[in-house]
Amino acid sequence: MLSYVFSDKMAALQPSAIREILKATSVPGMIPFAAGNPSAEAFPVSEIQRITANILQEQPFAALQYGITEGYAPLIERIRSMASERADAVREEDGILVTAGAQQAIELFAKCTANEGDVVLAENPSFIGSLNSFRSLGATLRGVEMEADGLSIEKLEAALRQNPKPKFLYTIPNFQNPTGSTMSLQKRLALLELAEKYDILVLEDNPYGELRFDGEDVPALKSLDKYGRVMYVGSFSKVLAPGLRLGYAIGPKPLIAKMTVAKQGEDVHTALLPQMIAERFLAENDFAAHVERLRTLYRAKAHLMLDGMAAKFPSEISWVSPEGGLFVWCRLPDSTDMLDYVKRAVEKQVAVVPGTAFLTDQSEVSHSIRLNFSTPTDEQIERGIEILGGLAL
Amino acid sequence: MLSYVFSDKMAALQPSAIREILKATSVPGMIPFAAGNPSAEAFPVSEIQRITANILQEQPFAALQYGITEGYAPLIERIRSMASERADAVREEDGILVTAGAQQAIELFAKCTANEGDVVLAENPSFIGSLNSFRSLGATLRGVEMEADGLSIEKLEAALRQNPKPKFLYTIPNFQNPTGSTMSLQKRLALLELAEKYDILVLEDNPYGELRFDGEDVPALKSLDKYGRVMYVGSFSKVLAPGLRLGYAIGPKPLIAKMTVAKQGEDVHTALLPQMIAERFLAENDFAAHVERLRTLYRAKAHLMLDGMAAKFPSEISWVSPEGGLFVWCRLPDSTDMLDYVKRAVEKQVAVVPGTAFLTDQSEVSHSIRLNFSTPTDEQIERGIEILGGLAL
Repeated sequence: MLSYVFSDKMAALQPSAIREILKATSVPGMIPFAAGNPSAEAFPVSEIQRITANILQEQPFAALQYGITEGYAPLIERIRSMASERADAVREEDGILVTAGAQQAIELFAKCTANEGDVVLAENPSFIGSLNSFRSLGATLRGVEMEADGLSIEKLEAALRQNPKPKFLYTIPNFQNPTGSTMSLQKRLALLELAEKYDILVLEDNPYGELRFDGEDVPALKSLDKYGRVMYVGSFSKVLAPGLRLGYAIGPKPLIAKMTVAKQGEDVHTALLPQMIAERFLAENDFAAHVERLRTLYRAKAHLMLDGMAAKFPSEISWVSPEGGLFVWCRLPDSTDMLDYVKRAVEKQVAVVPGTAFLTDQSEVSHSIRLNFSTPTDEQIERGIEILGGLAL
Repeated sequence: MLSYVFSDKMAALQPSAIREILKATSVPGMIPFAAGNPSAEAFPVSEIQRITANILQEQPFAALQYGITEGYAPLIERIRSMASERADAVREEDGILVTAGAQQAIELFAKCTANEGDVVLAENPSFIGSLNSFRSLGATLRGVEMEADGLSIEKLEAALRQNPKPKFLYTIPNFQNPTGSTMSLQKRLALLELAEKYDILVLEDNPYGELRFDGEDVPALKSLDKYGRVMYVGSFSKVLAPGLRLGYAIGPKPLIAKMTVAKQGEDVHTALLPQMIAERFLAENDFAAHVERLRTLYRAKAHLMLDGMAAKFPSEISWVSPEGGLFVWCRLPDSTDMLDYVKRAVEKQVAVVPGTAFLTDQSEVSHSIRLNFSTPTDEQIERGIEILGGLAL
């Protein structure tokens, strides 16, 4: 058989550990703390049924024919209003690109700005999907340590000093994946000043921003950006439905224009029926009330998990309670073999993600695991936490 | 204002000339010979309405939740049967990846095989979307001249000899875009032997294969491949609806596995509702009969255009009648300034694509234009051909 030679950038890249775990954990009976899926209760099913029927009745050709790369024009206008009202994330002079999930926006931004070998800074740990996307472009990842209130500003400046000029910093400021932590306002302002001082761009990924169930909103980096250095990425996956694969990028027009050219070469445009469903959903529903329902749902699930952990987990396991999002990040004692712990959890039918999956350098050691509370049912949360609490450390 | 620095591979890349022309030609009254859209009559609208309602009624969560990167499993099985029965394009040991249109399959294949600077061979002229996709990965394009029965085998061998080992050859063997020409069986066999001799892969793009309205089918390169060198790319855009953005790659499992990892980093997975619509369409309809209807539709449109050209065009314009697909490629006399001719056509409200858009080296001269017969109405075809026929050469 022929032996296939892969490009340098792709040769070493392996499938996302999480998505591989997800495949393994589709085993019946497995408690899904490893996923990052929205709760099935979160989907506005009957509304999507109604909207979709109307679209295919009234505008079938708009839904079935080719569209333009930028996105479905009425959806772009809805995104502009929504992102402006809810996150102050649009300036008059910004462009908007509709993408196949936030993942594509992140990949396109990196493709347009970073050459192979260029340094990209990222919070460490961070979302594996984005890290793998940067790896698949041949970028060199440098991690910046996370703290309870967001990345370490000292470590960020050290990384900026030590590395040949990085192209950008990738950050998830709200309810970060996997740590759940939210960056303080003070750190956001300091980060933007460092971006200016060291002349780098900032890729702000905000998939969970609407899912705040405790505490107060902190302004988006994009809303604080005086210099045109921030590209803001949003997603419909957590506030509408991930199966639609819809995200968007908002930022300086020259960057959006180049990302649009890159998107032409990747998929021509995003599927139109999903774009039209999202547009009508925003047009015909009270989005604030919808989000409030999601917050109520996730608040209950998060607190059920956190209360269970407080009651059942040995005191050697520590965590910071998230104020939103979908995840709790737990630190096991240094003396525990984390990967062995994860294996024993799976044997007891509880799937969790080993912290190593999220490291910018996966050869480093992690003592943490990520738990998700949006996918499991309430019963699964209670039972799963009890099982984890009973595992030897 | 900040001046943005782009990656080397993206810095020079401009938006697709065709898609820019398409935007300009959305002007009311413009006759759309520049597009590549399926005819609106080709869409099975009421069937898609029925299917979509059923999916959202019966399996809403499957349509709205995250899916796996490989694609919706029942659709993969339908693709396997269809591609096997209709093009003999699947071997037992092949993998299949569902993609966001054929464009994504093409981009993923190139990303996984070619490094920046690597030579990629392509028919010259060829589909600009694919060429731009290769450019956006930093590949160096080398064109192989087209003849009436497919690319020149002599020129292909010369290109294989002259260049540092190319990574792959990109070809559209059936009703090629833009030339409309179909590669002969003899050339297909010769091409595969050269691929083996020079140790390169072949990317076979077959978006139009089902749209044969004259002549006899020629076996797919994939069906003739004894060596595991061919990646076959198919599309639902021309046989179902392009707005769904659905394509697929069929080929050696190690390549499909690597492309799947690359897709994770680009968009996680293809939108599920479109995948489920395509799956049910294949499950619940007579696909052969559906394709036969499309062939009848396009046969009539193609012949209307070709007959009109024969009657109205000055004898100095030449073309080869296509046996399928969506395009006619016309050669203007050497003495005609082609770009000026295209400009004058647009002034008379007929949009056509200048041949330069399709060249692997866009600084070369082209004397050709591409006409599309699937998008315009019959009346537009008659009027547009009459207008073009009246233009001074």
